[in-house]
Amino acid sequence: MESDRLCIVLVATRNPLNIGAAARAMANFGFQRLRLVHPFDTAFREARSAVGASALLATAEEFPSVAEAVADCTLVIGTTAVGHRQLQHPLQSLKDGAPLILQELSAPASAPNRVALLFGSEKFGLSNEDLSHCHWLMHIPTSEAQPSMNLGQAVAVCLYELTRETASAIPSTAPTLAPSAEVERVSTTLLDTLQASEYIGAESPDSKQASIRRMVRRMHLSSEDASTWLGILRQILWKLRAKN
Amino acid sequence: MESDRLCIVLVATRNPLNIGAAARAMANFGFQRLRLVHPFDTAFREARSAVGASALLATAEEFPSVAEAVADCTLVIGTTAVGHRQLQHPLQSLKDGAPLILQELSAPASAPNRVALLFGSEKFGLSNEDLSHCHWLMHIPTSEAQPSMNLGQAVAVCLYELTRETASAIPSTAPTLAPSAEVERVSTTLLDTLQASEYIGAESPDSKQASIRRMVRRMHLSSEDASTWLGILRQILWKLRAKN
Repeated sequence: MESDRLCIVLVATRNPLNIGAAARAMANFGFQRLRLVHPFDTAFREARSAVGASALLATAEEFPSVAEAVADCTLVIGTTAVGHRQLQHPLQSLKDGAPLILQELSAPASAPNRVALLFGSEKFGLSNEDLSHCHWLMHIPTSEAQPSMNLGQAVAVCLYELTRETASAIPSTAPTLAPSAEVERVSTTLLDTLQASEYIGAESPDSKQASIRRMVRRMHLSSEDASTWLGILRQILWKLRAKN
Repeated sequence: MESDRLCIVLVATRNPLNIGAAARAMANFGFQRLRLVHPFDTAFREARSAVGASALLATAEEFPSVAEAVADCTLVIGTTAVGHRQLQHPLQSLKDGAPLILQELSAPASAPNRVALLFGSEKFGLSNEDLSHCHWLMHIPTSEAQPSMNLGQAVAVCLYELTRETASAIPSTAPTLAPSAEVERVSTTLLDTLQASEYIGAESPDSKQASIRRMVRRMHLSSEDASTWLGILRQILWKLRAKN
């Protein structure tokens, strides 16, 4: 397992102490790559809770959107406390999801797959828009009476599970998946095509677009197939527009 | 496993927020019995970090010594970040120690064994005197560079491991794949579209068609997605042909 390939992405975190706690857990379990999407309090780099993880906080990267934070990632997973909304994604328990993540992290060095693990804000979790960038969702099984975990504790539990079996990493046999930026280009071009062909209206609701994005995610495109699809869609789009 | 038989014992905890965080993790994983040995700040019962665990904090028991806190326990385990002192006890990793704890907790009801899991102070861990009450020690495997975990995070990780095997498995939500006939309809319609858009010529070689078919197979379409794609392609095809 290449721990450097896992990005912990904290989205819209309100409390800088929780960012520090997440960084500390990362240092405890040997992970380095912390990414933040518009944190509420920008003074997080001084969080006192980041015991032994100040270097990690100093190199944390900030992004204006989830799309940009996961652009170089081939697998994007959202964490959820389940049940607070209708889930439209495949869902895995942490125990069952961890091997899938490790498989992606263990791909040959010639194909450095990168995985993003997303954690939402303390109060609201991940939004539907955030979730539309995810391949599947992961859930830590908790009591029905108190399902919602503290952010730093949830990060610690996930990273513990990911390193629990370190000795027996599963060698990957799956093809390299396309990075999110390529998948996003396919989605965007498909949406343009759907409008040009009047499959959807020019002012289609966000939910419709999100549903198309999820469908494209479910294709698990390789880089090569993503590029083929892009060629197909651009040709169709060109043809459709040429006639108008 | 009788979760009511496990006592989480926090010894000489300095920060009441950590007591609250431990209580929250207990509520998350379905444990109730919190014991405190001379906490530094006695105002811990109001700790704001105990989200959803105020009842648990209210019923937490206070003891003047470790001996009294574990008096009714048949198995006493100390947690340690190892290496900060010469260990004179048997040591188990969390993964290997958890089954031993669960075994003790699952004894017949006629012999209600009780287990104490001890966590030391944030700065110094458990003292040698504290450890002298323990049967063995347990360790969460962490990075050598940063072995020391936050108290609330350590409690969360331990309780996660203890419930890992029994937590209600989430039913897999992987969608059913579309039957071959439906996938074939998508392939055929896509090929028609590729011709209509002149992405491929009317007399394209079989090998080209076969390669497109394989690509569609690789999409692992669910029935629902196959039907959506069919709708999309038919609309595009209709638009393309309407203009010719």
